[in-house]
Amino acid sequence: MSLQNRRIVMASRPKGAPTPDNFRLETTTVPAPAAGEVLLKTLSLSLDPYMRGRMSDAPSYAPPLELNDVMVGGTVSRVEASNHPGYQVGDVVLGFSGWQEYEISNGEGLTKLDRSLTQPSLALGVLGMPGFTAYLGLLDIGNPQAGETVVVAAATGAVGSVVGQIAKLKGCRVIGIAGGAEKCRYAVEELGFDACLDHRADNLAAQLAAASPNGIDVYYENVGGKVFDAVMPLLNDNARVPICGVISQYNAESLPAGPDRLPLLTSLLLKKRIRMQGFIILDHWHRYGEFAAAMGPWLKAGQIKFREDIVAGLENAPQAFIGLLEGRNFGKLVIRVAD
Amino acid sequence: MSLQNRRIVMASRPKGAPTPDNFRLETTTVPAPAAGEVLLKTLSLSLDPYMRGRMSDAPSYAPPLELNDVMVGGTVSRVEASNHPGYQVGDVVLGFSGWQEYEISNGEGLTKLDRSLTQPSLALGVLGMPGFTAYLGLLDIGNPQAGETVVVAAATGAVGSVVGQIAKLKGCRVIGIAGGAEKCRYAVEELGFDACLDHRADNLAAQLAAASPNGIDVYYENVGGKVFDAVMPLLNDNARVPICGVISQYNAESLPAGPDRLPLLTSLLLKKRIRMQGFIILDHWHRYGEFAAAMGPWLKAGQIKFREDIVAGLENAPQAFIGLLEGRNFGKLVIRVAD
Repeated sequence: MSLQNRRIVMASRPKGAPTPDNFRLETTTVPAPAAGEVLLKTLSLSLDPYMRGRMSDAPSYAPPLELNDVMVGGTVSRVEASNHPGYQVGDVVLGFSGWQEYEISNGEGLTKLDRSLTQPSLALGVLGMPGFTAYLGLLDIGNPQAGETVVVAAATGAVGSVVGQIAKLKGCRVIGIAGGAEKCRYAVEELGFDACLDHRADNLAAQLAAASPNGIDVYYENVGGKVFDAVMPLLNDNARVPICGVISQYNAESLPAGPDRLPLLTSLLLKKRIRMQGFIILDHWHRYGEFAAAMGPWLKAGQIKFREDIVAGLENAPQAFIGLLEGRNFGKLVIRVAD
Repeated sequence: MSLQNRRIVMASRPKGAPTPDNFRLETTTVPAPAAGEVLLKTLSLSLDPYMRGRMSDAPSYAPPLELNDVMVGGTVSRVEASNHPGYQVGDVVLGFSGWQEYEISNGEGLTKLDRSLTQPSLALGVLGMPGFTAYLGLLDIGNPQAGETVVVAAATGAVGSVVGQIAKLKGCRVIGIAGGAEKCRYAVEELGFDACLDHRADNLAAQLAAASPNGIDVYYENVGGKVFDAVMPLLNDNARVPICGVISQYNAESLPAGPDRLPLLTSLLLKKRIRMQGFIILDHWHRYGEFAAAMGPWLKAGQIKFREDIVAGLENAPQAFIGLLEGRNFGKLVIRVAD
């Protein structure tokens, strides 16, 4: 009897925010692994904002998904069968199987996870791509110094929560921005941020100004939109703005109405000697070891905390992903595909 | 008989482009230098685009001029009388006397120029603030590598001409942008740029695309506006954009009409991992010696060429400055105030 594989493909390109009919759940069969191959069973699937970019055909840093392609995504999987000398049945690996239950792999791009890791899904979050994104952008481009003020939005998310906590470890004043009182309470009480503001407040700009009496030295950009608008006038001389994402823009179908503030931004960068720089974590993967060597001890010592938002069932991935883009998750969003 | 000093003050703040009635020529008397002071006679006055910023009261990196203040500016002066132990009559100094014939100074901020310097006005241009601005922004932020493509506008100006020539020394392909065929011919034939485009052309964007078959790796921003618009879509992954000025914006009274391209720029910086960074050369003055040590030999060997646009007479400074903002100068604009 052949093995059934449930998978979710892109049925149509979203216009604006994705809707359930942009996705299709289908069932295929999986062949037995050939020589040099392994059969992977997906345990956990990471859902991340960048996936929205892959669903568009606008030019970007990675080629777009084509219609009927399996949705991409980082996964933690268990080896179910192996004809590959490097893997044994029962090994747990970090890979990129995407939104499906099984994958045949030749081992390329797989990382074997330590069997001592009690919670392998962390390799998709605080110990994985989002945590590494937070670490590298904040430290390499943001270069936070003790006593400086660091602002990060999506403050309880997979990236923002790590940005803020590393900035606290570096001695900074940290102001988070998040959606709703519960997330803000968590950022301050659990994660140790100095303040956290609700981005839904009418007077966000005024609140941010009040919370930043010494201005803003580092703004870790992961949302764009009205948060950046509130940050802009508060940026100090020599501020740094690493850009890891602009989630507020991903569903935008057109540019906002004018005036055109592009020249305003350029003038601001000049007058205040600001450095603004985008980065894509895949370019820096050779430094993952450095990150893991720093993050491991922080986690063990409880200096970096994390929260997972786990949704059970591959079939619920589309709805969870739509919610992610609306900020409905609370912590790193992970789909539990199998146990 | 007391010494008469002609000087030019800001009579009113410009609205948009400065006009002659924003300036007033007046005559005052100069006292004899007290103990510890010198009397400076201005020989050459530098006119530079940044002065337009000082005439506005919008917040910037330097406090604005007040009404009736003497216009600021770098100067080469001769010591006419000295009660300062460090200076002798006949010394030639680089200072910041502004738009006037005489100044009493306590020596602060003065740099004695080597008497072997046959053309002291170079200390206002290729060997001075503009040359240093070109050097530091290009090398520190632009970080040009052999074989990369570098684009600079105002290509025959005090900064742009040095940017392009240093980039050529580093083995780059250099594309200048300038106003008119004569300047473009000079940039290619005299300065050695690979190409130079007339920014007045209707199809600047298409010409720039054709001249940059491998895209643009470094755009040295000194003008903004439609030149940046043409550059933006051609920027390569990991491009660098040092910002030293935005001369096209200095006279703007309002932002351009929409759509608002600020989010577009942020997304572009992310997707292409671009670094965009403003700088103000005064922040880096402690590194002037490093610059002078590099530029001196380049000048002596004829590897860096320069051109001065000299206007005689302090009274002509306002008209020359108005022309500078319109690109009417050809080379470093200097007012010869006295011989």
